[in-house]
Amino acid sequence: MYAPQGVKTNANMAVPDTMRAWVLGDPGELRFTQKPVPAPRRAEVLVRIDAVAICATDLEVIAHGTPALVDGGLPFNKSWTPGHEYMGTIAALGPGVDEFSIGDRVTVEIHAGCGQCKRCRMGMYTSCLNYGDTRKGHRANGFTTDGGFAEYAVNNINTLIPIADSMSDAEATLVVTAGTAMYGLTELGGLIAGESLVVMGPGPIGLLGVAVAKALGAAPVFLTGTRQARLDKGLALGADHIVNVTQEDAVETVRRLNGGKGVDYVLECSGASDAINAAGRMLNRGGKLCLAAFPHEPVLVDVAHLVRNNIYVYGIRGEGRSATHRAEAFMRAKRFDARTIHTHTFALEELPQALRYARDRIEDAIKVVVKTR
Amino acid sequence: MYAPQGVKTNANMAVPDTMRAWVLGDPGELRFTQKPVPAPRRAEVLVRIDAVAICATDLEVIAHGTPALVDGGLPFNKSWTPGHEYMGTIAALGPGVDEFSIGDRVTVEIHAGCGQCKRCRMGMYTSCLNYGDTRKGHRANGFTTDGGFAEYAVNNINTLIPIADSMSDAEATLVVTAGTAMYGLTELGGLIAGESLVVMGPGPIGLLGVAVAKALGAAPVFLTGTRQARLDKGLALGADHIVNVTQEDAVETVRRLNGGKGVDYVLECSGASDAINAAGRMLNRGGKLCLAAFPHEPVLVDVAHLVRNNIYVYGIRGEGRSATHRAEAFMRAKRFDARTIHTHTFALEELPQALRYARDRIEDAIKVVVKTR
Amino acid sequence: MYAPQGVKTNANMAVPDTMRAWVLGDPGELRFTQKPVPAPRRAEVLVRIDAVAICATDLEVIAHGTPALVDGGLPFNKSWTPGHEYMGTIAALGPGVDEFSIGDRVTVEIHAGCGQCKRCRMGMYTSCLNYGDTRKGHRANGFTTDGGFAEYAVNNINTLIPIADSMSDAEATLVVTAGTAMYGLTELGGLIAGESLVVMGPGPIGLLGVAVAKALGAAPVFLTGTRQARLDKGLALGADHIVNVTQEDAVETVRRLNGGKGVDYVLECSGASDAINAAGRMLNRGGKLCLAAFPHEPVLVDVAHLVRNNIYVYGIRGEGRSATHRAEAFMRAKRFDARTIHTHTFALEELPQALRYARDRIEDAIKVVVKTR
Amino acid sequence: MYAPQGVKTNANMAVPDTMRAWVLGDPGELRFTQKPVPAPRRAEVLVRIDAVAICATDLEVIAHGTPALVDGGLPFNKSWTPGHEYMGTIAALGPGVDEFSIGDRVTVEIHAGCGQCKRCRMGMYTSCLNYGDTRKGHRANGFTTDGGFAEYAVNNINTLIPIADSMSDAEATLVVTAGTAMYGLTELGGLIAGESLVVMGPGPIGLLGVAVAKALGAAPVFLTGTRQARLDKGLALGADHIVNVTQEDAVETVRRLNGGKGVDYVLECSGASDAINAAGRMLNRGGKLCLAAFPHEPVLVDVAHLVRNNIYVYGIRGEGRSATHRAEAFMRAKRFDARTIHTHTFALEELPQALRYARDRIEDAIKVVVKTR
Repeated sequence: MYAPQGVKTNANMAVPDTMRAWVLGDPGELRFTQKPVPAPRRAEVLVRIDAVAICATDLEVIAHGTPALVDGGLPFNKSWTPGHEYMGTIAALGPGVDEFSIGDRVTVEIHAGCGQCKRCRMGMYTSCLNYGDTRKGHRANGFTTDGGFAEYAVNNINTLIPIADSMSDAEATLVVTAGTAMYGLTELGGLIAGESLVVMGPGPIGLLGVAVAKALGAAPVFLTGTRQARLDKGLALGADHIVNVTQEDAVETVRRLNGGKGVDYVLECSGASDAINAAGRMLNRGGKLCLAAFPHEPVLVDVAHLVRNNIYVYGIRGEGRSATHRAEAFMRAKRFDARTIHTHTFALEELPQALRYARDRIEDAIKVVVKTR
Repeated sequence: MYAPQGVKTNANMAVPDTMRAWVLGDPGELRFTQKPVPAPRRAEVLVRIDAVAICATDLEVIAHGTPALVDGGLPFNKSWTPGHEYMGTIAALGPGVDEFSIGDRVTVEIHAGCGQCKRCRMGMYTSCLNYGDTRKGHRANGFTTDGGFAEYAVNNINTLIPIADSMSDAEATLVVTAGTAMYGLTELGGLIAGESLVVMGPGPIGLLGVAVAKALGAAPVFLTGTRQARLDKGLALGADHIVNVTQEDAVETVRRLNGGKGVDYVLECSGASDAINAAGRMLNRGGKLCLAAFPHEPVLVDVAHLVRNNIYVYGIRGEGRSATHRAEAFMRAKRFDARTIHTHTFALEELPQALRYARDRIEDAIKVVVKTR
Repeated sequence: MYAPQGVKTNANMAVPDTMRAWVLGDPGELRFTQKPVPAPRRAEVLVRIDAVAICATDLEVIAHGTPALVDGGLPFNKSWTPGHEYMGTIAALGPGVDEFSIGDRVTVEIHAGCGQCKRCRMGMYTSCLNYGDTRKGHRANGFTTDGGFAEYAVNNINTLIPIADSMSDAEATLVVTAGTAMYGLTELGGLIAGESLVVMGPGPIGLLGVAVAKALGAAPVFLTGTRQARLDKGLALGADHIVNVTQEDAVETVRRLNGGKGVDYVLECSGASDAINAAGRMLNRGGKLCLAAFPHEPVLVDVAHLVRNNIYVYGIRGEGRSATHRAEAFMRAKRFDARTIHTHTFALEELPQALRYARDRIEDAIKVVVKTR
Repeated sequence: MYAPQGVKTNANMAVPDTMRAWVLGDPGELRFTQKPVPAPRRAEVLVRIDAVAICATDLEVIAHGTPALVDGGLPFNKSWTPGHEYMGTIAALGPGVDEFSIGDRVTVEIHAGCGQCKRCRMGMYTSCLNYGDTRKGHRANGFTTDGGFAEYAVNNINTLIPIADSMSDAEATLVVTAGTAMYGLTELGGLIAGESLVVMGPGPIGLLGVAVAKALGAAPVFLTGTRQARLDKGLALGADHIVNVTQEDAVETVRRLNGGKGVDYVLECSGASDAINAAGRMLNRGGKLCLAAFPHEPVLVDVAHLVRNNIYVYGIRGEGRSATHRAEAFMRAKRFDARTIHTHTFALEELPQALRYARDRIEDAIKVVVKTR
């Protein structure tokens, strides 16, 4: 019976000793197995996972690993569980935790900073200088610590976002995606009502980027991309204009539709190799560019254009600055319907099939959600 | 006799009708000629130029032109006067100006925003959306309006910085260079006492960047470059460490000397083609990079590294955010001796020779100053 | 015929030489008279006023004057026209203006900074150091320059906000009220989605403060006040909780309803003598307080409480930081219905009656609008 | 022998089991006794105290208590040790600490936030919402946890500032005082080179406020107060002007000496009952006021003046935003000589006498330091 020392449990929410979990073997190989249910420490809770969404980064991590694991090695064959976009119900409380109760429904963000480095001390917990060092308290679940393709996970309370009763499990898995877009807009200045914005790339972050930007009052909001079906989702989420770059020159079209002027902000979510240069030419003097995606190889960048035009570029990886809470607030208030991008659902034991749908975009899959119960 | 309507003059400071001025003919050709002394308008003054420094950008503008002139053409054969790093004495006041008096010694910054576009309205006057539009009041002397290789120039009062009596004419020409470095550090966060910083490139902005950063308390401050004599000037201006990249790997050396860690900030003033990538590898997670120089051709950039490490990049061209005033305050308080970088002096009529010294770095020239009187 | 030099007019929108206008005589005395239609200068336009709302400050200015008029005197018996919450149609363009066209519908904000003082230079145009100095270009229409209880007014283009076709004249007069609330929230940090907020005082700014805060995602939003009918309007505009302070202890009720904790922000719009102290006790450690209203006499303040709790207090008078544009964007997007607070309409010639309704809150008047045509 | 579980010690720096410490009995009563040496936990170290300065707040806490102790009671008769301005040598490391080594000389700041509340999460650790809750990890040594009038204390690593070898023990005790002034200037905007500033009150924070402001380049800097000897210390620390308010009207004098204009910033360190109103009248429109002291009783405040002039007021208690590190960097660089304010030294056993000197300002005492070894 699950009863780690100092951990508070509740008879109404029995926790088993072991759980079903997917673990990573060799690159690309996932194995469904039994693992011990982990124990929360100080400032941590145990979350019973109810649903988990698949992110493109999960596919990468499973295939190629992540360099940031604390022991310096790749994450293969270590009984390690990937998955980071999950939500669930609090099942046990670490020592001293009274901020949450057993039974609370929560969704999660990924990064728990160590809380004691210079970056954390200034509120930049996603840039924690002890990244990957679990001894210092850093966690990035699904990256450097066990993630959500399992029945249970431990989370620092800093990474928990309470969710509305009216929000379904599947919708709640999308909060961190919206939160990433919100973080980008936060770092770009935040006060974007009435400002013009281009979102490049109609993947999940880009699509919810459109939704969040409209919730914040941005206008006009442009969405550029290559897949018409996804661009149409962007329209449904509030984009004022969509630009199919297979048919039009994006820079020229954006400037023309914006009254012959550049825009104030670009949120780049495509990772395309020429995205930075195109963004630079879409922006006005003094404009700002957030990179929420990136090409894997170095690319030719017209740096002179950025400097001459006083353009600032913000590279972000994941969420930050408590933006996930702001995204949840908008979703709770029904300011946009993130469920639009949820296309497919599978059971936990069907994870390999779910990953295949996500990777190969089978049946135009955008966001694939795995229901754990 | 000089008496434009509405302009206030003073018998103690007689202004002639015409003046000696260098004007640009064909690319690379300067001609010394007589021109009418211009008349200041509302919120403008006439400055009698006492000294003017040569910037690398002047060499470029003279050889290749600047694309931003308001009539859309190149600046050649239009009786246009280049030069932007000048100082002098106020000789006449435009209508309604009472912020300054005739006889006041001032140095100048380059950009007068229009004051009525969205960027100016938010204090970003160097990103004025009416850049180059003199009808809207925008001026960038020496770029889009007449500059300082002459005896007189008109300046918007926004571009004037009063200087201390104890500051020589030559030293005062260096304020805008220090102000550009200060602007970079301002945009990087400003509060850099005790923070680690790398300055790349020991040109005038880089050298004064070291000086300003030390005045602000940054520590340690690294200076990287290829020319030992200039690196030694950096030491004299307060650099804690200099790194000659012809002899050492800059990234490795910086990280080693910084206790095995990345630094917090990089101020890139070299324009070298691999500078952004090197800067990215010098920086810690969450670090910031200011680009005050740029390569002329697109360069391969490891964008993934910037995004994965949450690095923000600030492209700046010239000064901004009233940073020139802050730089002058430090110089006035003798917090650093900018005169260290002033190596050669010529008379106005010797401008071509002065430009040659600056361009070819004759006798290790760093900052060449032209004395107008 | 109206044809000031350098001013552009249009045959489709004939402008007379004189206009009907209310002017201030002795304190409290308004006279309906004919005045010349004024001429716009550089960066200014002539606005044909279509509607103007009455603000409590108008009542004060008419009764007691405003100390800030440029000639140092009170505004009485100077043929001066009050009124600052107006909207209309552009009827003529000053020299060089091409940002707007004749016929454009616009609403206005009040403050045009001089554009050349230190505060304007940093984007704080409502804190212009040349406040009241029309020679420097400063204008605060209805305060230091002629206002909107007339058929025409001159406006700096910085003070114009284009409005949607779908917005009625009356609704457009409310933009600056919403913009003032938005400015307060902007200075408090801006990113308030999911943060808790108390608005004190259900006057026009307070009520639209609730609406703007909800549009920005704040939750929960409390509204406190004494008049139940107005509190009910606050509910309609989205307040999560209303607190009638004649029936409940506001501090205790707010803390109880907020889960026993203090709130993050207070927007004080009541001007009540104990408002600051109550706000201080509603706030959590590190909370922020914006004062958009004030008691006329000095009041006892528990400064120790503010200091011990690291509370920051922002005094604002009127709009700023381009917040009016952000407010308009939310109104254009129908994010809230400002028309809820518009209760009465009068014709221009009925201004005294309109003022009486506003002052005495006849028939529960909240916002009284005067239609000029 | 001292060997708590998981704690790392070093033979070169033997730690006894018990230590000499002053503990608080009834109000105003201190008793010199033996106490166990405490054990550091995760992210904590044991500091051997080498010197500790006396702050006016210590006198208050000893006489009247502090309301913030976690058990809700007053701190009397609980074997509790006051004192918060200390420095020393690291004597033992809590589990997992490798950021510091045994033998490192450090000075301390007071507040270790919990790291997991909303304020800490955004970098506002001195406004921690779990203030006083040691179970959550919050510590405010000398306020809510044991302080420095003893031979040893436990400190969170977040509160440690490494000091230069060249800095004496006594000088190092002054870092947190300078850091409090630096925090105030940080929150006021930070970039104050060339900006005008008034410091009110020549106590330790005010005097070092002058020094830090000059190090940051502020000019002119005014210091106001009633005691000429202290004002003269301010001159020695760099004040451009001192104003003895027993002889001159401070508001009138400051404005006259500042060219007839208000100043940009006021740092209020006097706690005088009319300080806020005087500060408001010294400031220009849009100026900022930091309250680092406060009157104990509510005072009459002219709120209308603050609101009409768009003045922002920042209440701070103690240090924050890592400002102590910035202060230490300036002291390390010998940018100012904080030792000027250190007037008297006593041994640990002489604490009562030291407190008497500080309280009664015997022999013009400013900063009294207690040497523990």
